[in-house]
Amino acid sequence: MSKLTGKVLIAQGGGPTAVINQSLVGAVSEARKHAEVTRVYGALNGVRGIINEDLVDLSQETTRNLEYVAQTPSSALHSTRDKPDEAYCKEIFKVCQAHDVRFFFYIGGNDSSDTVHIVNEASKAAGYEMHCVHIPKTVDNDLVINDHTPGWPSAARYVAQAFAGYTLDNQALPGVFIGIVMGRHAGFLTAAASLGRKFEDDGPHYIYMPETAFSEEQFLTDVKTAMEKYGRCLVAVSEGIHDKDGNPMMVKLSGRTEKDAHGNVQLSGSGALGDMLSDLVTRELKLKRVRADTLGYAQRSFLGVVSDVDASEAREVGEKAVQFAIGQDMTGSVTIHRVGNYAVEYRLVPLHHIAAKTKHMPKEFIAPEGNNVTPEFYHYARPLIGSDFPTISRLRAPKVEKILKK
Amino acid sequence: MSKLTGKVLIAQGGGPTAVINQSLVGAVSEARKHAEVTRVYGALNGVRGIINEDLVDLSQETTRNLEYVAQTPSSALHSTRDKPDEAYCKEIFKVCQAHDVRFFFYIGGNDSSDTVHIVNEASKAAGYEMHCVHIPKTVDNDLVINDHTPGWPSAARYVAQAFAGYTLDNQALPGVFIGIVMGRHAGFLTAAASLGRKFEDDGPHYIYMPETAFSEEQFLTDVKTAMEKYGRCLVAVSEGIHDKDGNPMMVKLSGRTEKDAHGNVQLSGSGALGDMLSDLVTRELKLKRVRADTLGYAQRSFLGVVSDVDASEAREVGEKAVQFAIGQDMTGSVTIHRVGNYAVEYRLVPLHHIAAKTKHMPKEFIAPEGNNVTPEFYHYARPLIGSDFPTISRLRAPKVEKILKK
Repeated sequence: MSKLTGKVLIAQGGGPTAVINQSLVGAVSEARKHAEVTRVYGALNGVRGIINEDLVDLSQETTRNLEYVAQTPSSALHSTRDKPDEAYCKEIFKVCQAHDVRFFFYIGGNDSSDTVHIVNEASKAAGYEMHCVHIPKTVDNDLVINDHTPGWPSAARYVAQAFAGYTLDNQALPGVFIGIVMGRHAGFLTAAASLGRKFEDDGPHYIYMPETAFSEEQFLTDVKTAMEKYGRCLVAVSEGIHDKDGNPMMVKLSGRTEKDAHGNVQLSGSGALGDMLSDLVTRELKLKRVRADTLGYAQRSFLGVVSDVDASEAREVGEKAVQFAIGQDMTGSVTIHRVGNYAVEYRLVPLHHIAAKTKHMPKEFIAPEGNNVTPEFYHYARPLIGSDFPTISRLRAPKVEKILKK
Repeated sequence: MSKLTGKVLIAQGGGPTAVINQSLVGAVSEARKHAEVTRVYGALNGVRGIINEDLVDLSQETTRNLEYVAQTPSSALHSTRDKPDEAYCKEIFKVCQAHDVRFFFYIGGNDSSDTVHIVNEASKAAGYEMHCVHIPKTVDNDLVINDHTPGWPSAARYVAQAFAGYTLDNQALPGVFIGIVMGRHAGFLTAAASLGRKFEDDGPHYIYMPETAFSEEQFLTDVKTAMEKYGRCLVAVSEGIHDKDGNPMMVKLSGRTEKDAHGNVQLSGSGALGDMLSDLVTRELKLKRVRADTLGYAQRSFLGVVSDVDASEAREVGEKAVQFAIGQDMTGSVTIHRVGNYAVEYRLVPLHHIAAKTKHMPKEFIAPEGNNVTPEFYHYARPLIGSDFPTISRLRAPKVEKILKK
C-alpha cells in the first residue's frame, strides 16, 4: 500500500455517456475503502469546478445513493467544455495542493487525458507528490491503445436499437430514410447502425463514415440501387462526413459554422445535414417519401438503454484507476484490452500515449467500397452491446392464391 | 358461439407502433382456436394488400414465431397510407366475399375505423354476413371514447426516457435544448416529455402542445425565464404547433409543404421546425449553445422500449376483437375504459362513434398558461408507461469549504 496519504479529487469532463457515472462510483467506492484516503472530493463542472473550488465531499454520500447515481446516465458531477492550457492546469494543481489532494482522477476522452498529463507535470515540477489517473470514456470510441472505450457500447446499443426500429418502420411504410449519427472523426458509432440487422434485406443498406471521403454522386447511386433492389432505402450517415478535400458536408451544404472552444464546428443539435441530404435525394432522384432523422443527444444520454457489458467495464475502469493510483503509486491512463473471445484486461499506460490522439475505424471494419461495414466489425462489436440485445422477427406465412386477380 | 363459419382476414393500417404486433398476434392466436374459423389470413400492406389480393395464410405460422413477432415493433404485415373511399371499400368487400372472409379485423387509428365502417356497410348492402371489428392503435392517443390507445403508452415511455436523458445532459452541459415531439393535432405524446421529471428543476421546463396557440413572444419569454432561474432551459414542442389563426409553425417558418394522400403537410422526418426555433432563440435572445433535436420515427418504432402495460393491453384488444366478432357476432370498435386505479375494461362501440373523430388533451391536463402539464396528467399517464419505468438520481454530497477563493 502507498505511504502517500491525502485526499482524492475526481471530476468528469466532456460529453456525457450512459455509463460515465459507473466510472465515478467505481472510483469513489474503491477510494472510500482505502485508509490512505482522508476524504473523497468531487469537482462540479469538470476542471472548471476545480479552479473555482466548487468541490463536494463524496465521503458523505450514502452507498445506496451512489449505486442509484451509477445507474443514471450523464455526468452526475456535471461537465465542462473547457480545454485547459498550461496556465489553467497550474491553477488546477494549486487547488489540489491547497486541499491536500494526493490522488487526482479525471474521467473523459483524449482531451481529458491531456489535462491530466499537464496537471501531473505541474505537480512534478513543484515537487508535490500526487498520483494522477485518467479514466477513459467517450461515445466516439476514439481513444488509441484501448480495444474500445466505456460509453461507446451503450451508445452503439442505442444506435443499433434505433436503426432496427427504423428498418422495421421503413419496411412497413417504404421510402428513403436517412439517419444521422454522432461522430466527428471516427465512424464507430455510425457503424453500430448495422448491429441490429438480422435478415438479408434489413437496413441500413449503406453506412457512411468519416473514414471515407463522401461523394454525393456515389450516395445518390447507392440510394437508387437500394430502391431498385428493395423498393426502399435506409442509410446511416455520420455527422462528420466530409468531401475528398476534408470539407465537412455540414459546412459545405448548410452554411452553419458555430464553433466551440476547441475550434470545432457545431455538428450535433441541428437537423441540417439530414434535411440537406434528404433534399438532395428528393431533387436528384425525384423520389417521394424521403425522410431524415438526426439521432441527437439521445445517443449519449437516453435513460434506460445501457449495455450490461459496458456498465460493468465502466465500473471497473473507475475501480482500477484507484487501485493503480493508491495501491501501486502509479500515474497514467487506464486502458481496456481484449483477451480471448470475449474477455478484457485493464492496464495503465503513460498519459501522453493517449492524449490528443484519435483512433479511427480500422480498414478491416470498412467494406472496400467505403459505404458499409464488414463481418469483422460485427465480430468486434457484438459482445460489447450487451448480453440481452433484443432481436427482431418476421412473419413467415405462405402466400394465399389469388382468386379475383389471378 | 356463432353459427357463421368462414375465414378471418386481418390487416394493419397507418403508422407503426411498438405494440401493434401484439394486437395482431392477440387476434390471430385467438382466431386460431375457434372452430368457426376455416383459415386466418393476413393482408400485406394494409387495405392495399386486400384489393391487390396480397394475402398470407397465418394459419400456417408457428406459435413460437408469432410470439417473437408480437415482441417486434412496427407492423409485421406492413402498412399503407391509403385512405379508402367508398369505391375502394367496395373492392375490399369483394375480395372478402371471394375468399369467404366472414370476420374482418383492421388495426389502426380513426381513419382505419372509418374504413371498417364503410366495408361493413358494403357487406350489409350486399346481404353478405360478415362481422367487422376495428382494433385501436395510435401513438397520438387521439381516439375518442377510449381512455387511451395502445401504442401511445410505449411511445410516451420512449419520449419520457429521452427527455429524462436530455435533462441530465442539459444539467451537465447547460444551454437551451429544444426537443420536437410527434403529434399533429393532439398533444398527448409531447406531454409525455414530462413523465421522467423527478427533481423540482428537472426539464422540460415548458411544454408546447397543439391544443394551445403558439406565440413566439411567449416562447422567448419562457426560455428567458428558465435561463434566469436555472441557467439552462429544456423545452418540449409538438411538431403540430400552430399560431392563433391555425397556421402550422412548420409551414409558417420553413416553407416545407409536401402533402400526403390525406392532404396533411409533412411534419415528421425533417429537423426544420427544431432548427427554426433554435435560430429564433439564438437570434432574439443572443444565447449560445442552443440545440434542437427532433425525436423522429424512433418514437413509434424504437426496438426495446416498450411499456409492459401497453404490450398487455395491445394483446388484449386483439384478443377481445375476435371474441366480440366470433363469440358474440358483433361488429364495432374495441375501446379501452379505465376503471379503478388502475384497471381497464374493454367494450365494443359502434364504428361511427370512433371514425374520423379526434380526441385532444383535456383542459385539466394543461396548465392555465398553456405551456405545461398538470399533476392530473401525471396521474393519468403514470400507470400506462410501465411498471418498471426507470428513475434518475443525483449526488447529494455537501459542498467543501473553499480555501483559495473564500
